[in-house]
Amino acid sequence: MDSLELRPIGVIRSKLKERSQAPKQGSEGAPDVWVEVHPFAAQALDGVAVGDELIVLTWLHRAQRDTLKVHPRSDPKRRLMGVFATRSPDRPNPIGLHQVTVRRIERNRVRIGPIEAIDGTPVIDIKPVLCEIQKV
Amino acid sequence: MDSLELRPIGVIRSKLKERSQAPKQGSEGAPDVWVEVHPFAAQALDGVAVGDELIVLTWLHRAQRDTLKVHPRSDPKRRLMGVFATRSPDRPNPIGLHQVTVRRIERNRVRIGPIEAIDGTPVIDIKPVLCEIQKV
Repeated sequence: MDSLELRPIGVIRSKLKERSQAPKQGSEGAPDVWVEVHPFAAQALDGVAVGDELIVLTWLHRAQRDTLKVHPRSDPKRRLMGVFATRSPDRPNPIGLHQVTVRRIERNRVRIGPIEAIDGTPVIDIKPVLCEIQKV
Repeated sequence: MDSLELRPIGVIRSKLKERSQAPKQGSEGAPDVWVEVHPFAAQALDGVAVGDELIVLTWLHRAQRDTLKVHPRSDPKRRLMGVFATRSPDRPNPIGLHQVTVRRIERNRVRIGPIEAIDGTPVIDIKPVLCEIQKV
């Protein structure tokens, strides 16, 4: 099977150091973090402004890629479901999808939140929210 | 720099064959398509149902990965912006983010739409929309 190569465009710097400390969703009490955008991609931030709503895509590097079914929200009372019907980080391509607000910008560092991704998580893309549409 | 390997979990089968035929967003007149989920990942569909709202992540394989600035919506009258402030497919990691509705399910094939991704586009993840949150 073909594979496709992702190139991280930045990294999360968070006070959350372990997956066990992280809430399941940003809206569940997650902190603000810094995204350090790598120098090769810094120009791509031009136009991002404080107050913007962004979608940040991360690579959840501690996830299990061979997991195809899970108990939703790790609740053993809920029946096993396919990971495509859940937001489990454990999935074939562990891409995290986070809606955040921009708090501050310092050259190639962007303060965003709230976000549950832990310290050291690679960032793979940043996109604006499209206001005329829709829920993540 | 580290790279990360994506493994496609499926492929788009669409009547749109060329990027030039595709609308810029699914909401701008895009068709329904089939997603053929590869056999290794078919179990991960368990729990996905007709009528569900999903986020489909694709790999926009015809995009330019070395583009860091664009004129938004290819409009030369708009100033050049960093790609992280736009939804341009041309970006370091050309990941497409599409909100769709499930129309039909046939074993490992899922009919979804509307979606602007062209025929042959690799699918890299499928997630449910979280209703309590937020706009893409």
